[in-house]
Amino acid sequence: MQQSTANLSALYAPIRADLAVVERLFDEEIASQLSFVNELCDTVRSYRGKMLRPALLLLTAKAAGGVRPAHRTLAAVVEMVHMATLVHDDVLDEAKERRRRPTIAAVAGNQAAVLLGDYLISHAFHLCSSLNDQFASRRIGAVTNVVCEGELLQNAQRRNPDLTEEDYYAVIQRKTGALTAVCCELGAKFAEADGETVEAMEAFGLAAGTAFQIVDDLLDITGDPREVGKSLGRDLEMGTPTLPVIHCLGSAPPQVASAIRTAVTTGVAPDRGQLARWLEETGSIDHALTAARRQVMTALEKLNLLHSSEARQSLTAMTEFILERRS
Amino acid sequence: MQQSTANLSALYAPIRADLAVVERLFDEEIASQLSFVNELCDTVRSYRGKMLRPALLLLTAKAAGGVRPAHRTLAAVVEMVHMATLVHDDVLDEAKERRRRPTIAAVAGNQAAVLLGDYLISHAFHLCSSLNDQFASRRIGAVTNVVCEGELLQNAQRRNPDLTEEDYYAVIQRKTGALTAVCCELGAKFAEADGETVEAMEAFGLAAGTAFQIVDDLLDITGDPREVGKSLGRDLEMGTPTLPVIHCLGSAPPQVASAIRTAVTTGVAPDRGQLARWLEETGSIDHALTAARRQVMTALEKLNLLHSSEARQSLTAMTEFILERRS
Repeated sequence: MQQSTANLSALYAPIRADLAVVERLFDEEIASQLSFVNELCDTVRSYRGKMLRPALLLLTAKAAGGVRPAHRTLAAVVEMVHMATLVHDDVLDEAKERRRRPTIAAVAGNQAAVLLGDYLISHAFHLCSSLNDQFASRRIGAVTNVVCEGELLQNAQRRNPDLTEEDYYAVIQRKTGALTAVCCELGAKFAEADGETVEAMEAFGLAAGTAFQIVDDLLDITGDPREVGKSLGRDLEMGTPTLPVIHCLGSAPPQVASAIRTAVTTGVAPDRGQLARWLEETGSIDHALTAARRQVMTALEKLNLLHSSEARQSLTAMTEFILERRS
Repeated sequence: MQQSTANLSALYAPIRADLAVVERLFDEEIASQLSFVNELCDTVRSYRGKMLRPALLLLTAKAAGGVRPAHRTLAAVVEMVHMATLVHDDVLDEAKERRRRPTIAAVAGNQAAVLLGDYLISHAFHLCSSLNDQFASRRIGAVTNVVCEGELLQNAQRRNPDLTEEDYYAVIQRKTGALTAVCCELGAKFAEADGETVEAMEAFGLAAGTAFQIVDDLLDITGDPREVGKSLGRDLEMGTPTLPVIHCLGSAPPQVASAIRTAVTTGVAPDRGQLARWLEETGSIDHALTAARRQVMTALEKLNLLHSSEARQSLTAMTEFILERRS
């Protein structure tokens, strides 16, 4: 979904003014009386990318009935939850770079990064509690429970070369799909869409998020570090077999499969170019792309329930772009 | 506040049945469909101590008007927040032992410990959102914001031998005082006590929590590891000067002050016995105990606003016990 800024800028036209409010709400919420905390928050802000989750929430809202004040608050909340997961992920993955900048852990140490992630989670819930009723707090809380389970599951499955595709989906639907699903669900719900539409938007978000993660995992292997702007090749080094690797383990010649098994169990990964060639030869890249395409088709189908609108067109284009992203 | 179980058992008599409900709510909330997550949760449960924060919340409620269902939920919420901070603290402090058991980080690794802490925070907010209105979510969110700031501040001040007592209080009032304050505030508030009483109970909790932390920091230096049941001497090793150390740095003969400065900046701490003797000789232990006593007096004074009751007697006794605790 992280296509070029020019493309996204056009797709975001229906919600541009709302996104500016979301940025302001985000900044106001995390502002601290402690100046060094604000400096850390400035670093977090520098990781702000295309604000895909806020955009999904607001576009769904717009397409399903209209953007209301609660949507802008919720869009800031989901972005804060996402930022918290990025900060903690970088600790877990021992990543050094994020959006071409040093990670919080690299700047201020792992301890500060753990605490800053906690600070962001706490502020996300605090901001969410500013709404008039508990519904969103319940949904966001339920989803962050699931996101944590996804992360715990991924962590528990590290260094396991016998992972199945089912295991893989169990992780990514929890750690990525659940958050995009709740974005679209809350977008529709707070626009007072009917139950069927709310459900369809949740399913749209789940499928789009799942596709996004499959492509994200592919880019970890095949992406250009200058375009992606973060540490690459980390999945295999951390012992996390992603979809193409799982496919390759089941279809590669014994010698290649054995080399990849060793990489998963030891973290001593082959050169990214070599790995990409193996995955190419076994059709594993295509296999993962096909899987992502299937999720994209599911997502697009769900959008049919919405009336035609510029916002719906943006959702369609963003979803199609998932398969094209290079960063 | 962690006096012997026999003593506490008597003090908890007015809320014994409520505490049993709190344990059940806690367990139900953190139960997962993933069995390995439940195993980690079993380990978390094994750190359950005297449930001081739930007890403070419930006793304040009882003394200020009566325990209602929301109080039991909130008591489980504050215990969950506390457990989350313990799990992350053990990562930050590289602690190996907690309540005579290996820490989560020691059992399952730092990564699982970071994620399990996140899981507990998320579930705490999720459980809080089950209440009918947003008031508690707002207060808990605001307080966890402050707790995180306290932890970030402590982390930023590590290895700094020029810390003042003011700096020390800025940390402990945020990281410990704020949570005990909100326990007592919510206890009174949800018992529908008047505004003056709610405010007094919040001040009671802040002072009691501050006293508790001063004594906790003392025990890190003077405590018996067999009684305390967790890694001791960690503060100086982690470069965190606590109240007696700050006092000693300002009053010890140059040679001793210099040795302690070196310990703070390098983390190569003197033998705990040696440190304790130095602090004893400079009156630094007494200085810290006097400071804790002052907080206890402030706390006890606030309890005067409550009508006489068995619950109030328990609060008084728990507060007085802070100065006696050995574990």
